Amino acid sequence: MQIREATDDDWPHIWPFWHRIVAAAETYAWDPDTSETAARALWMNPAKRVYVAEDATGAVVGSAYLTSNYGGPAAHIANAGFMVDPEQGGRGIGRALAEHVLAEAKARGYRGMVFNAVVETNPAVGLWKSLGFTVLATVPEAYDHPRHGLVGLHVMHRAL
Amino acid sequence: MQIREATDDDWPHIWPFWHRIVAAAETYAWDPDTSETAARALWMNPAKRVYVAEDATGAVVGSAYLTSNYGGPAAHIANAGFMVDPEQGGRGIGRALAEHVLAEAKARGYRGMVFNAVVETNPAVGLWKSLGFTVLATVPEAYDHPRHGLVGLHVMHRAL
Repeated sequence: MQIREATDDDWPHIWPFWHRIVAAAETYAWDPDTSETAARALWMNPAKRVYVAEDATGAVVGSAYLTSNYGGPAAHIANAGFMVDPEQGGRGIGRALAEHVLAEAKARGYRGMVFNAVVETNPAVGLWKSLGFTVLATVPEAYDHPRHGLVGLHVMHRAL
Repeated sequence: MQIREATDDDWPHIWPFWHRIVAAAETYAWDPDTSETAARALWMNPAKRVYVAEDATGAVVGSAYLTSNYGGPAAHIANAGFMVDPEQGGRGIGRALAEHVLAEAKARGYRGMVFNAVVETNPAVGLWKSLGFTVLATVPEAYDHPRHGLVGLHVMHRAL
């Protein structure tokens, strides 16, 4: 597996799993009906660094972004987001992307990373904890999960 | 004092104190050099409801916005921001704006409100607590304050 910066040409390969993940409405606090145009503007935003994971065949199997979580006097705290093709789960792609993005964030001078809204039922919570993130807080009943009903949103943090 | 929805004509009266507050870099995690154009796009964003407080002479002495803090399955949690002309402090303008915005949020169906980044040294923390907000978490060393150095950013929450 190779992780590299994304180019515009990667978007058509990201969109199918991006759409599937957001439409499922189980892990992202974004409109499940987000159009491809809006999704592209959101994910491939020039203010963000965007990465893709390619498997040995050159297929794009995951993507991540890195940006500042705040501006001005708090711009040294990073934010990141991750999507892995659900058909490629269990292969360590999420972990590899996360390790890459954490290293990039540190190299670029960020002093910490915050995830603002991790759905507490998302299996990725365990991955983030194994990478050194802690749950700072849980916003109660903040996410209406299609199977679990109202669940909390974790604010997770790791120093860099 | 009267609180009403803002119109485009209010912006020139908001900008002087908006700029003064953000340039001071003590309470907002926004670029202190934010231009007027960028500030207007940020504050008078059509996705937000914007309010102003007028004193008895009709002068705009404060402003607030109300929006969703997240999208999709979490869009029932509100976010808000408040600015009061520093020359008009101690007159209860912030409290009046906050009570108005909390009532508006509840009337519009929001189930809770979250502030993502309240600088822990901001005197407004006491106001938010007196209005029923609790500090869910503090992101450590997240805000570089010009007098206090690195201080935390509170995530504050209130059910509606």
